[in-house]
Amino acid sequence: MSGAKIVSEWKSFGGRQLVVEHASEACGVPMRFSLYLPPGVTRPPVLTFLSGLTCTWENVTTKAGFQRWAAEAGLAVVAPDTSPRGQGVPDAEGRWDLGVGAGFYVNATHEPWARHYQMDRYVTDELPQVLAGFDLDLERQGLMGHSMGGHGALVFGLRHPERYRSVSAFSPIVAPTQVPWGQQAFSAYLGDDRAAWSRYDATELVRQRPRRDITLLVDQGSQDGFLDEQLRPELFEQACRQAGQPLRLDMRDGYDHSYYFIASFMEDHVAHHARALCG
Amino acid sequence: MSGAKIVSEWKSFGGRQLVVEHASEACGVPMRFSLYLPPGVTRPPVLTFLSGLTCTWENVTTKAGFQRWAAEAGLAVVAPDTSPRGQGVPDAEGRWDLGVGAGFYVNATHEPWARHYQMDRYVTDELPQVLAGFDLDLERQGLMGHSMGGHGALVFGLRHPERYRSVSAFSPIVAPTQVPWGQQAFSAYLGDDRAAWSRYDATELVRQRPRRDITLLVDQGSQDGFLDEQLRPELFEQACRQAGQPLRLDMRDGYDHSYYFIASFMEDHVAHHARALCG
Repeated sequence: MSGAKIVSEWKSFGGRQLVVEHASEACGVPMRFSLYLPPGVTRPPVLTFLSGLTCTWENVTTKAGFQRWAAEAGLAVVAPDTSPRGQGVPDAEGRWDLGVGAGFYVNATHEPWARHYQMDRYVTDELPQVLAGFDLDLERQGLMGHSMGGHGALVFGLRHPERYRSVSAFSPIVAPTQVPWGQQAFSAYLGDDRAAWSRYDATELVRQRPRRDITLLVDQGSQDGFLDEQLRPELFEQACRQAGQPLRLDMRDGYDHSYYFIASFMEDHVAHHARALCG
Repeated sequence: MSGAKIVSEWKSFGGRQLVVEHASEACGVPMRFSLYLPPGVTRPPVLTFLSGLTCTWENVTTKAGFQRWAAEAGLAVVAPDTSPRGQGVPDAEGRWDLGVGAGFYVNATHEPWARHYQMDRYVTDELPQVLAGFDLDLERQGLMGHSMGGHGALVFGLRHPERYRSVSAFSPIVAPTQVPWGQQAFSAYLGDDRAAWSRYDATELVRQRPRRDITLLVDQGSQDGFLDEQLRPELFEQACRQAGQPLRLDMRDGYDHSYYFIASFMEDHVAHHARALCG
């Protein structure tokens, strides 16, 4: 397990809810993730949840209620952190949308971020290597995320069709190059290299490399305070239509950006992944 | 609504998850509680969840996943705070098992606690008056709680058979007069008045006034770190047996004292209450 150690463990819906710490080469600091192992299944498929701004493994693990549905479906669920953190990791003083808790799932190329902010490499490459130390079937992986993590799920899902068989997102940032959160983060992490920006923009990616093999599932609350300025699902919807990308975008009347929203539709999302991964 | 105001609101499983603040006469400070209103039901029955040491309305409301089951059953769920808190409220410096977050659901008679620590009166008398301002059927109420709140649920349920039609608890402190948490809290709040102590001890109460009209439901994790010293369900089990009190005590193998445990069996508990309160 490359030095991975279980730092917390609880029984949950018959399975094991773990928190794992390991030395990360990509991020240059110890990283923690949560891992839910469903009961009675050997080598379960793996569903990775990428969290949004300010979150750690803990938010989705304590608030989203996925364990009930993962236990029933026989899916393992992994929730990594949203950035490196701790001693020596640079941060943006007084900001919650840049730096610690806001890695945006990119490999930073600009200082002071480049040394530690390698969340693309961390999630898509190093984390699966660490997971190989557990009894998991890494040939069957799915990706899910929320907000900034929904961006990560869509981007990685489009980029790595061979690895991720199913993709879903809650309230994703679908077009980071066109909205303030993404523009600020990409400017800092990637500088003015617009080609690099495009490689991290789901709306641009889907035009270049749609995944016609799967339907992307997106849920979006109609009362989400970030909808018009930061999320703009219509941009992604239009790009999917033009590119022939199957998309199920469900606008959910009255819901906001919170974990109360995520929990309300988690059963649907786990079922979406279970259809692709289990069976 | 006696000055009650909604300070937060989220949509959750089709219903409304509120946080309400109101001036409390019993506690002498503003108090907050959460209130879940299920969708599509007028005047739903009310299930009150009493939380454990250190908690506020927030722990159970974000971590226990009750909304899913309450929405399905058509039950409202109320979660009050565990003590008064804020300016002028005395606390026990450096302790988490006395003072703020640790009201133990008693009416304190000793200083410095007596002025504000009136959680019995608050939960059983004032809170229902505030709830009368909402569209709820207060003729159909149930009580549920965890740890210190399981103690509260059992005590109030035994004391007020006319008010609470159903009672359940996770990992309750069943015999506070016999365990350190309860002895320390009762000494502080009630002094050495042993008769007052007894009125707040479920194991003693059930001997005097069992409720043969209902089955009490208790879930207890076998790996709960507080089991042997603070919880001691066998004391309550024996008293119930001797008093003819119907009790379903389920020992849950491998579970601990956390909300992961509570969430795992919340569906069962809500169903227990729904059988008594709905339909």
